[in-house]
Amino acid sequence: MQVFNTAEIPIEWEEHYVSDKVDPRTESYLTWESLESVRRNGVGLKGPMATPIGKGHRSLNLTLRKELGLYANVRPCQSLPGYKTRYDGVNLVTIRENTEGEYSGLEHQVVRGVVESLKIITRQASLRVAEYAFHYAKANGRQRVSAIHKANIMRKTDGLFLKCCREVAEKYPEITYEEVIIDNCCMMLVKNPTLFDVLVMPNLYGDIISDLCAGLIGGLGLTPSCNIGEGGIALAEAVHGSAPDIAGKNLANPTALLLSSVMMLRHLNLNDKADRIQNAILNTIAEGKYRTVDLGGSSSTTDFTKAVCDHL
Amino acid sequence: MQVFNTAEIPIEWEEHYVSDKVDPRTESYLTWESLESVRRNGVGLKGPMATPIGKGHRSLNLTLRKELGLYANVRPCQSLPGYKTRYDGVNLVTIRENTEGEYSGLEHQVVRGVVESLKIITRQASLRVAEYAFHYAKANGRQRVSAIHKANIMRKTDGLFLKCCREVAEKYPEITYEEVIIDNCCMMLVKNPTLFDVLVMPNLYGDIISDLCAGLIGGLGLTPSCNIGEGGIALAEAVHGSAPDIAGKNLANPTALLLSSVMMLRHLNLNDKADRIQNAILNTIAEGKYRTVDLGGSSSTTDFTKAVCDHL
Ligand SMILES: CC(C)[C@H](C(=O)O)[C@@H](O)C(=O)O
Ligand SMILES: CC(C)[C@H](C(=O)O)[C@@H](O)C(=O)O
Repeated sequence: MQVFNTAEIPIEWEEHYVSDKVDPRTESYLTWESLESVRRNGVGLKGPMATPIGKGHRSLNLTLRKELGLYANVRPCQSLPGYKTRYDGVNLVTIRENTEGEYSGLEHQVVRGVVESLKIITRQASLRVAEYAFHYAKANGRQRVSAIHKANIMRKTDGLFLKCCREVAEKYPEITYEEVIIDNCCMMLVKNPTLFDVLVMPNLYGDIISDLCAGLIGGLGLTPSCNIGEGGIALAEAVHGSAPDIAGKNLANPTALLLSSVMMLRHLNLNDKADRIQNAILNTIAEGKYRTVDLGGSSSTTDFTKAVCDHL
Repeated sequence: MQVFNTAEIPIEWEEHYVSDKVDPRTESYLTWESLESVRRNGVGLKGPMATPIGKGHRSLNLTLRKELGLYANVRPCQSLPGYKTRYDGVNLVTIRENTEGEYSGLEHQVVRGVVESLKIITRQASLRVAEYAFHYAKANGRQRVSAIHKANIMRKTDGLFLKCCREVAEKYPEITYEEVIIDNCCMMLVKNPTLFDVLVMPNLYGDIISDLCAGLIGGLGLTPSCNIGEGGIALAEAVHGSAPDIAGKNLANPTALLLSSVMMLRHLNLNDKADRIQNAILNTIAEGKYRTVDLGGSSSTTDFTKAVCDHL
């Protein structure tokens, strides 16, 4: 907020908190009003949330994805100058199908000791996320889209996913399209992640690969994320956990949340403001003077945030 | 063979080749005789094989797993002194359930544009691979077993897998047992793989993570693999592809195959011989004089193999 004020972003905030009781209309601790607010405004910014443990309600994250039709999770993953990891020059974007696949929730016991779960792949959801991936690649000047799959084993499900990607790829002749098997993809990512540009994939592979990629540049504390929903909704979010051990102690690294808010600004076409804030964040990190605890430093959240504001 | 002769290994080889036509008894290019040979001898060593493309037959690898009941794929993954990657001191073992999960082959179209595949988890197969993982950990002086899962989403299937691991873990109080969610596991592996010791997991996660781990130490050309089957069968194999581009050119890196044969010797309790060969291989790599093309060198397969023999 402080950063947005300093950057004079013309945004009025509506604040919504996770409730302390289950809202029957969402079957979760999310209030109906908070969902309505995102729907009405078309954008939202979400901090880390932990689903309280217990029965009879849905996970906060899964509820959001479902209720807002958040079909694509987008995570740019870029090496941060000044924050050294084992990898240099990483600059890729993972685009994860966010609504189906292994996350169908359909599971049952067949007989005692034998359980099965259903992975669902639909043409509609696959085309939708493939469209988004190519659209994103083109809009962001990226050259290549890699579809990640295991169609050599799951010929029909992952096969359908690939078929949809190929169909969309034909409409974007200027963008190179390739298909990479997930096991090989993970090996290539740890050996040479600069081989990749935009990656698009079904839900579970996206879950796995987006976290792997975050690890390459330093972890979830540094990786922004944005969910694209039906009707152009965008919900930016910091995907790291709510870290109950440090909550309220002014120790959290706000980078992921700030970079996510930059994605939100871009979605609103406030690109100049987005650039300004992004540069301020990157410069603060590059300078290396303020480093939060998760990165081995001792700066507080406020110190770091103040430094970002000073860079604005 | 040359290495085994030099090391005076008391083994008589039976050689079996992939056939040029489908054997109706195996429904694949594998001959029934080659399967019988592994069954009779209890051990086998398999080079890389590519399944010829075409219809009406089964994949060579999947046929082997099925016909020989190869329920666990074991891959030790150790940093090789002398071959530098981004990671030092990696020393972990992945143990992959090899018969069920996402590899059930059960898939169908529900309605046009909607396909589903079944992931099957059974108590029997999960207990069996968990037993093997803990047995392996104990026999090899390892301290910890991590079960990798996504039971927060696939509560019943991965939940059953975890339940079985927990049951077995109780019988091994001297071994630390932990559970790690697969996305987080991949992030931890790229950030700090030395946190892991033995990892056990369902089929697809094992497929992904074992290749990721191979990438950490330099790739599949360096990683041995052994499949454990019903009745104590062990089929060691080089898991890299058959690399048709360099086949027959004397350019392949024999390290994975040689290290796999070392796993086979250990299975036969020929530990002294195994140590000798393993040291000769590691010393050849550490010396760095003979490096095959895949590792950026220009040595031929025979040069490298000769160097290993010289170190014996
Ligand atoms: C918390 C969990 C349900 C979630 C997922 O698996 O999608 C998380 O890992 C994520 O990536 O947002
Ligand atoms: C070739 C393919 C069927 C196989 C698998 O997915 O199991 C391979 O990736 C492996 O790991 O042996």
